[in-house]
Amino acid sequence: MHIVYKSEPVRGAHWQRWLAQQAPDIQLHIWPEIGDPAEVEMLIAWQPPDDLTTLFPNLKALLSVGAGADQFDLSQLPPDLPVVRMIEPGLTQGMVEYVTFAVLGLHRDMPRYLQQQRQQQWLGHASLPAGKRRVGVMGLGELGQAVAAQLVSLGFDCSGWSRTPRMIDGVTCWHGEQPPGDFLARSDILICLLPLTDSTRGMLNQQLFRQLPRDAALVQVGRGPQLNQDHLLAALDSGQLRAAVIDVTDPEPLPPGHAFWTHPAIWLTPHIASQTQTESAAAALLANLRRYQRGEAMVGLIDRRRGY
Amino acid sequence: MHIVYKSEPVRGAHWQRWLAQQAPDIQLHIWPEIGDPAEVEMLIAWQPPDDLTTLFPNLKALLSVGAGADQFDLSQLPPDLPVVRMIEPGLTQGMVEYVTFAVLGLHRDMPRYLQQQRQQQWLGHASLPAGKRRVGVMGLGELGQAVAAQLVSLGFDCSGWSRTPRMIDGVTCWHGEQPPGDFLARSDILICLLPLTDSTRGMLNQQLFRQLPRDAALVQVGRGPQLNQDHLLAALDSGQLRAAVIDVTDPEPLPPGHAFWTHPAIWLTPHIASQTQTESAAAALLANLRRYQRGEAMVGLIDRRRGY
Repeated sequence: MHIVYKSEPVRGAHWQRWLAQQAPDIQLHIWPEIGDPAEVEMLIAWQPPDDLTTLFPNLKALLSVGAGADQFDLSQLPPDLPVVRMIEPGLTQGMVEYVTFAVLGLHRDMPRYLQQQRQQQWLGHASLPAGKRRVGVMGLGELGQAVAAQLVSLGFDCSGWSRTPRMIDGVTCWHGEQPPGDFLARSDILICLLPLTDSTRGMLNQQLFRQLPRDAALVQVGRGPQLNQDHLLAALDSGQLRAAVIDVTDPEPLPPGHAFWTHPAIWLTPHIASQTQTESAAAALLANLRRYQRGEAMVGLIDRRRGY
Repeated sequence: MHIVYKSEPVRGAHWQRWLAQQAPDIQLHIWPEIGDPAEVEMLIAWQPPDDLTTLFPNLKALLSVGAGADQFDLSQLPPDLPVVRMIEPGLTQGMVEYVTFAVLGLHRDMPRYLQQQRQQQWLGHASLPAGKRRVGVMGLGELGQAVAAQLVSLGFDCSGWSRTPRMIDGVTCWHGEQPPGDFLARSDILICLLPLTDSTRGMLNQQLFRQLPRDAALVQVGRGPQLNQDHLLAALDSGQLRAAVIDVTDPEPLPPGHAFWTHPAIWLTPHIASQTQTESAAAALLANLRRYQRGEAMVGLIDRRRGY
């Protein structure tokens, strides 16, 4: 089987060597080297080339190197082309680490303490036990479930909301088209792990922030266009929100001079919450290719109607 | 039984009400109200009064409100007076939260990312899986054991060192008078949770830093006088150390103008890593008083020879 990789080249070279050893029947070409395009069955990419199906007339699937596939313009792809996103343990573990860091930091008032450090002020504040801190996770897919389980094990009072029903041990779960008011009203720390779709675009707005407890905090690790940036700034400045940890923005990179860079209550990171880990992802990729060869459904197949 | 409380008054008032309900036979007086001093059997304090034994001629034990008893000048106390430090689940949980936050932050390069935010620089860096990050815990008492267990559950490659032998699931443990070179050489992130004694005073110095891997990081949650501050600054500036999260200093509060306030690779918090939690500590206190009444050893009894 011939597959083409079009993304970060160091990872591609690693996957190429690894597959050559583990699965000599699979040949991985690194873009722009594509071999005989008529033989290519899979493209693994962050962004496909514009002329995807002309270039690869026998393409059987498009694979994302990342956890999402929203960077693909699905409307421009053949409707019957399977699109698969990356599900691999390294990506999940990275997100668990980042969100745990962010939630513990917000729980323990760290943005305030680091701000006090800049002001050379030595001043302690009372802290709450984790069991009295109510955390809400929006999006309970692969990543959201793993995050919620970790927060429960740290003792947080954790609830979750997703479009479709989910059951997670120790987590009160809601479901439906929109996050329910009861869920928002009990989210002292709200985590957005939602995929980007027409219904989640702009969802983190004034109307939602108003339903959170006063002094709530936000962890935004979904996708940049879900957040209304002006509404976030207003909520922070009015005291409705206390702080925000933000890993995704719109656009990315965030332009110089943007208010997020300098706001004292915002911790901003450059879309690094979770990165596909070269080694664990190679094994996940190979397992998925084997599923395809056996005629089984690939893990991470996108539902083109719902968009994730 | 009569006991006197001499510390933060809001917590004292809470304990007084709680004990009145749960244990009406125990009367807690809040300093400077001490009732009949001849009846007082226990003093619970951060700092005892100078004339402790003259004031309370029938004192049976001195209890610390904190995790340590190093704030007491043991040489000034009667040698046969039992000294007891606070062991309660809220204090342990708080330390687990703080250290987990600090280790995840250092693991994921957060001091660098927040520094980049100040410079308005959007730049990602490769990350390691937790399983490849070697964390070393110095001090494996109540707090160190709980911290190590949490770090193991997050997937870190965790080892520990303590004066006396310890066994912790999933943790390679060393013991002895000094931290062994092999232990230090494999500590990418070193956590100090040691009590303050003559042997740990000044232990975090140039000689120790040199034995860590290049680019290591430090979490200092022991006691301020354990750290040679000039040596830390030199190690950060030479690149021997990458970053440090520091909760305890010498003196406290840290004076204005001190280099720790402004160093870009230091996160400084005002001795808040772990605070005695009013509610869980009340229950722990009562359980300890009951042990005393039954003639059993109290939990947290200090060994006066070793000093902790």
